[in-house]
Amino acid sequence: MLFSAKIDLAKRMIEPHTKHNVVRLSALKEYFNDQVEVERMINSLGDLVVYEYFENSFGDEEENVNFGLTVLYPGKVGREYFLTRGHFHEKRAAEIYIGLEGEGVILMQSEDGKVEWRPLEPNTVVYVPPGWGHRTINTGNQRLTFFFAYPSDAGHDYEIVRRKGFAKLVVEENGRPVLIDNPKYRT
Amino acid sequence: MLFSAKIDLAKRMIEPHTKHNVVRLSALKEYFNDQVEVERMINSLGDLVVYEYFENSFGDEEENVNFGLTVLYPGKVGREYFLTRGHFHEKRAAEIYIGLEGEGVILMQSEDGKVEWRPLEPNTVVYVPPGWGHRTINTGNQRLTFFFAYPSDAGHDYEIVRRKGFAKLVVEENGRPVLIDNPKYRT
Repeated sequence: MLFSAKIDLAKRMIEPHTKHNVVRLSALKEYFNDQVEVERMINSLGDLVVYEYFENSFGDEEENVNFGLTVLYPGKVGREYFLTRGHFHEKRAAEIYIGLEGEGVILMQSEDGKVEWRPLEPNTVVYVPPGWGHRTINTGNQRLTFFFAYPSDAGHDYEIVRRKGFAKLVVEENGRPVLIDNPKYRT
Repeated sequence: MLFSAKIDLAKRMIEPHTKHNVVRLSALKEYFNDQVEVERMINSLGDLVVYEYFENSFGDEEENVNFGLTVLYPGKVGREYFLTRGHFHEKRAAEIYIGLEGEGVILMQSEDGKVEWRPLEPNTVVYVPPGWGHRTINTGNQRLTFFFAYPSDAGHDYEIVRRKGFAKLVVEENGRPVLIDNPKYRT
């Protein structure tokens, strides 16, 4: 039975954990706007790690709270910052994020297409309300490390993000992150 | 609609918040083992603040996750360290704690009377499994500040703790915290 876990910021991991996933450029091709540029980067730079996460997951058991640590590396595909795939929960359920190091944002989108974004940085809690899809974006030059927690029966719907995308993209403009319409977004 | 909140460690608060409670010695009299000593302290030192917390609470709405910040001050009643009242959840539901500053422990007790305790300090996550009652104890010389999060429909049962207590007490022995049997514990 799990009673405690240690966040190791030097090693950027949480110990113990039941799950460690590493997500590379090739797995995110369909999630970036410029897929040709992703291909070019893989060919020239190799299949870079975009993010990885360590999680304590209780399966679909109701009553528990899954939690873990994500490390999202700095980088861009064209002007679009490195990002996590993003997901909606299968069941309406909130999620909590706490920034630990680095600078980023969380992009959130309601079921009816409203968009919000909030900074994710040390000592900031981002609260994703039930029903809102969300994606994390590293807008800085260093690793973005953050803690997350959500009800264990929430489930993840990545497919809807792959198919439709988010309504907005977070891209660099004059050295700063801005929100622009996603030209490929399907309602 | 709440999308983010800032943890202010200098001011030891979270902003915004929907709730701020301050809990003093007089309100905790029945929760300490030595009630005569609590009275004596109140008469000689005044009605000290033992802890306070700032919370974003979504009422009993299912699907949300309540979260906040607690500041538990250092002190002792006799050999017993300053503590939070402690609670069981009305519905079986887990709770997550993250230490931010100071040194303490979380004392946990299952419905059938098993007891566990774990350190709560910076970069440590304490996971309270569904069904386990829990109380936080400041075993250090400075403030113990920590983040907490739990499903918004969990509910709190403080009354069972007031009536029965926890099976164990955390007291100082040779300058260190030890776990001893609670002589007043009622099964």
